[in-house]
Amino acid sequence: MRADETVLTPLAHEVPNSARVDDSDALLRLAADTLRVLAIDAIELAQSGHPGMPMGMADIAAVLWTEFLCVDPDDPAWPDRDRFILSNGHGSMLLYALLHLSGFDLSLDDLRRFRRYGSATPGHPEFGHTPGVEVTTGPLGQGFAAGVGMAIAEEHLRAKFGSDLVDHRVFGFVSDGDLMEGVAQEAASLAGHLGLGKLIYFYDDNEITIDGSTELAFSQDVLGVFRAKGWHTERIDGHDRAAIRGAIERATEQEQKPSLIACRTVIGRGAPNKEGTSGVHGAPLGPEESLATKEAMSWSGHDPFFVPSSVYDLFAAAMRKGRTARRSWTSRLDATLVRDRELRGRWHAHFDPGKVSLHTLNPKKHAATRAHSGQLFEQLEEAVPGLLGGSADLASSTKTRFPGAATFSRTERQGRNVCFGVREHAMGAVVNGLTLHSGTRGYGSTFLVFSDYMRPAIRLASLMGLPSVFVFTHDSIFVGQDGPTHQPIEHVASLRLIPNLWVIRPADAVETTHAWEIAINRHEGPTAIVLTRQTVPALPRTSSALGSAGTSVLREGRDAVVIATGSEVSLALQAANLLSITGIELRVVSVPCVEALEALPIKEQEELFGVRLPRVTLEAGATAGWKGLAGADGLTLGLDCFGASGSADELANAFGFTAEAVATKINEWLRERRT
Amino acid sequence: MRADETVLTPLAHEVPNSARVDDSDALLRLAADTLRVLAIDAIELAQSGHPGMPMGMADIAAVLWTEFLCVDPDDPAWPDRDRFILSNGHGSMLLYALLHLSGFDLSLDDLRRFRRYGSATPGHPEFGHTPGVEVTTGPLGQGFAAGVGMAIAEEHLRAKFGSDLVDHRVFGFVSDGDLMEGVAQEAASLAGHLGLGKLIYFYDDNEITIDGSTELAFSQDVLGVFRAKGWHTERIDGHDRAAIRGAIERATEQEQKPSLIACRTVIGRGAPNKEGTSGVHGAPLGPEESLATKEAMSWSGHDPFFVPSSVYDLFAAAMRKGRTARRSWTSRLDATLVRDRELRGRWHAHFDPGKVSLHTLNPKKHAATRAHSGQLFEQLEEAVPGLLGGSADLASSTKTRFPGAATFSRTERQGRNVCFGVREHAMGAVVNGLTLHSGTRGYGSTFLVFSDYMRPAIRLASLMGLPSVFVFTHDSIFVGQDGPTHQPIEHVASLRLIPNLWVIRPADAVETTHAWEIAINRHEGPTAIVLTRQTVPALPRTSSALGSAGTSVLREGRDAVVIATGSEVSLALQAANLLSITGIELRVVSVPCVEALEALPIKEQEELFGVRLPRVTLEAGATAGWKGLAGADGLTLGLDCFGASGSADELANAFGFTAEAVATKINEWLRERRT
Repeated sequence: MRADETVLTPLAHEVPNSARVDDSDALLRLAADTLRVLAIDAIELAQSGHPGMPMGMADIAAVLWTEFLCVDPDDPAWPDRDRFILSNGHGSMLLYALLHLSGFDLSLDDLRRFRRYGSATPGHPEFGHTPGVEVTTGPLGQGFAAGVGMAIAEEHLRAKFGSDLVDHRVFGFVSDGDLMEGVAQEAASLAGHLGLGKLIYFYDDNEITIDGSTELAFSQDVLGVFRAKGWHTERIDGHDRAAIRGAIERATEQEQKPSLIACRTVIGRGAPNKEGTSGVHGAPLGPEESLATKEAMSWSGHDPFFVPSSVYDLFAAAMRKGRTARRSWTSRLDATLVRDRELRGRWHAHFDPGKVSLHTLNPKKHAATRAHSGQLFEQLEEAVPGLLGGSADLASSTKTRFPGAATFSRTERQGRNVCFGVREHAMGAVVNGLTLHSGTRGYGSTFLVFSDYMRPAIRLASLMGLPSVFVFTHDSIFVGQDGPTHQPIEHVASLRLIPNLWVIRPADAVETTHAWEIAINRHEGPTAIVLTRQTVPALPRTSSALGSAGTSVLREGRDAVVIATGSEVSLALQAANLLSITGIELRVVSVPCVEALEALPIKEQEELFGVRLPRVTLEAGATAGWKGLAGADGLTLGLDCFGASGSADELANAFGFTAEAVATKINEWLRERRT
Repeated sequence: MRADETVLTPLAHEVPNSARVDDSDALLRLAADTLRVLAIDAIELAQSGHPGMPMGMADIAAVLWTEFLCVDPDDPAWPDRDRFILSNGHGSMLLYALLHLSGFDLSLDDLRRFRRYGSATPGHPEFGHTPGVEVTTGPLGQGFAAGVGMAIAEEHLRAKFGSDLVDHRVFGFVSDGDLMEGVAQEAASLAGHLGLGKLIYFYDDNEITIDGSTELAFSQDVLGVFRAKGWHTERIDGHDRAAIRGAIERATEQEQKPSLIACRTVIGRGAPNKEGTSGVHGAPLGPEESLATKEAMSWSGHDPFFVPSSVYDLFAAAMRKGRTARRSWTSRLDATLVRDRELRGRWHAHFDPGKVSLHTLNPKKHAATRAHSGQLFEQLEEAVPGLLGGSADLASSTKTRFPGAATFSRTERQGRNVCFGVREHAMGAVVNGLTLHSGTRGYGSTFLVFSDYMRPAIRLASLMGLPSVFVFTHDSIFVGQDGPTHQPIEHVASLRLIPNLWVIRPADAVETTHAWEIAINRHEGPTAIVLTRQTVPALPRTSSALGSAGTSVLREGRDAVVIATGSEVSLALQAANLLSITGIELRVVSVPCVEALEALPIKEQEELFGVRLPRVTLEAGATAGWKGLAGADGLTLGLDCFGASGSADELANAFGFTAEAVATKINEWLRERRT
């Protein structure tokens, strides 16, 4: 027990099943205990879960949800609602209990099925799976950073549409673990830099991590770090409901600074023998300790999952305020849309965007595909007004900038170019937050090799089915002199392994336009657009129409088919032309997106590649992923070792990516097949 | 020009080719200008490179290398040398120029071949490629974090062997970009927490990033952040050599705190028209500006790559001190090793470890492979005394702890269990630093799904050929209730894509022991050991001897072969037993390490799998990587979508990982093949 902690004593004469509790703090305390008990009971029943956090943060949750958070359980997608993020997602039962008490579509039976296969209450909160869950969390730091994206979206939309229509906050619960993660530290720097005043996080400062005391690894002055990053901070007793209320009030007054409220809590608060220990973090309390906890709360004698009616009433009253706010907002929006035709158009373009078509400006131009992509930004700026994003300090290299828009900053909230800084991981998560928010759509860009830095965020976008767009340039060893640290080898293949992520590697201007169209019009998951640094030739096309799945047959041939992507499509054509002299005719097919190809019926794929034609794949990267398409007797040309520093020409020679080398390898392979 | 900057004026009567420069500061200035000129000339010749950083940090480099850094160019691997890390690796020419001037094996001709294929001077510094390069850098933040690992190694070895034999510092240059990266922020927290006083970093505070002013994305109080993380900090004019000297002296007096010296510099310092702009960051100055720069330095008239002899002399004098120190150290070591037999044994065990054999304690025990791994830690502690590491706050789950060792801390420097905190990325890079240092070997552990958080560090270990060990537990959907955020799908396959990384997924106690033996005895690259959370049966083995590449044929069969890894080997056996009832006989082969398998001759592989036997692969993860081994007519059983929250049994049923489901699929496939 620390000096600044009050001793946990049961309230005198507390009668949890009483419908009437006069003292408002006693009622709040009862609400908090209800959250604790629901978590205990669900975790006990599941025999799996994390009771420590829900019990520790229950008081904060009770105050926030019943007195501040403005949401409407009847319309969980209401654009102007407050967002609530549980970044320490292992405490999912706290969120499920809150959603249930607030009247979201989550029953006590759903809570009883906690962590069961197919239930609405999985181990960690999953966006799109449970109503009221704003973001999938569990991998630490991701929720923290996604909230920064949501706060950027709020500032941006408020600047565009006015505070009558957009005026809400992003609240979040974060743990020691969240704050230790680099992605959160990056995002905290960005949030402070951008002065995101609507962002308010509660830090569960319970001094316990899985391995024991935070003293083992985390002794820094957390609030000092955040202050130096431009945050408003304060420290409170996380079980003192008046202090919680006061801290939230002061945080909401901060217009220029995000807030971190460090809440000194006792993990597993209320469990007489286990509170304050790491043992309560990730395991059920067990029947004895559950009983003891309920006794200490004057909760004995109730069935599991008992909820006092006064607690339901308390949450219902809070949600009535949310419902009223949402109805009033809907009226304001309707009136505004009727009155202001210009705004109506813009509103719909942001919140109900239609299908987007882009046109290729210079289909015959020899240029880097990153340059082709860059040329589209004028159209994208116009066609997708909700799109905002930028790069991790490489905008001039990745060619990602809306030419007519400003940089998003403290003073220019309508800016659509976001300077993420050298913070790839936070960029990925912030982009997800922008996309989650509604009304905005996020994109981010960096060099392909640095996609590794943001991989956890890309995976989460895929898992959430979130149409974030990731632009990765400098996509092969042809980066050149920067050497192997900057040369992707395994990256395209390894991105393709992430379920539900589409990876598109266009070969010329036409395919680049198509890649962006797919990325923008896709709604069920993220897209990675993979682009060259170096100039590539325009492909010989008779029309700019592409086949199913964006494929192109660029050359007919009877002897074998070369399936290539990106910069290697023109190389395949050159090799085919060389071999043609010797009488060998290669079919050449560009396959910019393997995921789209695999969505085609096998028969259609076979027709595309030429029925029974032996197959060669050609991509300047790892070959393992191509073995299936090439088949057992196929040839997979690529690169399975690290590159080297040198000019693109030197590297093409050294690693066998000249037309001559490719032609020779194909020729030898065909000859071997014949013998 | 900022107020705190002195105006750049050429020194009066400066004669760069004079052999005699009386004023020592003028000589230092000349040395700094020589570094600038070498960078300018090499980048000009290469027509590629980053002159801004070398020119900006030349003064700091000149002071540090000629007055403080203790190294011996004749013995770049001397264990007690100071380490110098260029975390902002794009400024590689600064390091190459320093190495050349100091007499390392790097000639002016090598500098002339900067960024050329096959040269000793690649675009970014590469460990193992260029003598004197301590760590491969370029991906930002990695060098910063690796240095923290080196500083831990120094503290640890000093505690073990005394300051007579171990007493050196880790110096590093870091940029805005390094400090923005989460991996560096994580590592900074850890370094401050551990009080690593021998760590001294120079922050190139030039207020410029690639996209322009740091004001675009980086306005935080950097030094405030570091102070809150427990660092000694100060701010100096990075062109004031006396100030540089003073700051280093004060930093070296800090025994309990790492130091960050923020050096206000002008990027591209000395280029009259380009200094202080982002244009000088990543492109050659161009002939005109090069000329103008040299004129401003009174350098006109010299051939490119001219080095004043007085500058060579200055560095030679500094290196004489290093040579003397190394000789004196060698004498002390020799004397100690002769005198102290016990220490001699320990010293060799740390610095020249021999081949390690481990024995399996409970080969017949049904247990999780993480538990089998955990049982080995007592042997590992004894057999590999230089091994230290730990987990990212999951030691109790990953079962990685030396039972007889303490936790490494401020006060217990001999501790071998490192609590990295929830900082997977820094853990990866710190482990690399431990392994780079010599005398120590690093390992780190977390859940497999979080390998994504540390992927850039794993890649760098692979690129450096560094035998770091990464232990990843909870290796499939059988994690269970924690759900899809915690269930690896693509991770094993995507780790296998990283060149030079060996990925081992053992199936029982015997294979787990073998996995650790391979990892420890491997010297040319890192190893990832991938382990189950759930119990797996001991495999039916007649002996604990494994085949080439660690494989085991566990069942003979004439109809098909099932190639499986980890927890799916016993599943394959169960399915084979079921099918046996219907008269179908499956061969079952365990292949814990695909990389080792692929190193075998094709003929040997074919014998292992049964010549002409149709092939099934079985692994509870992405299938794409198995298509090649299975062949076009093979069957790849795995999982290419995200998992779900539920019990392991529920998930096995839902995703087809029961013996019945596997047997049915194999049966159907065999039937189809026959028709």
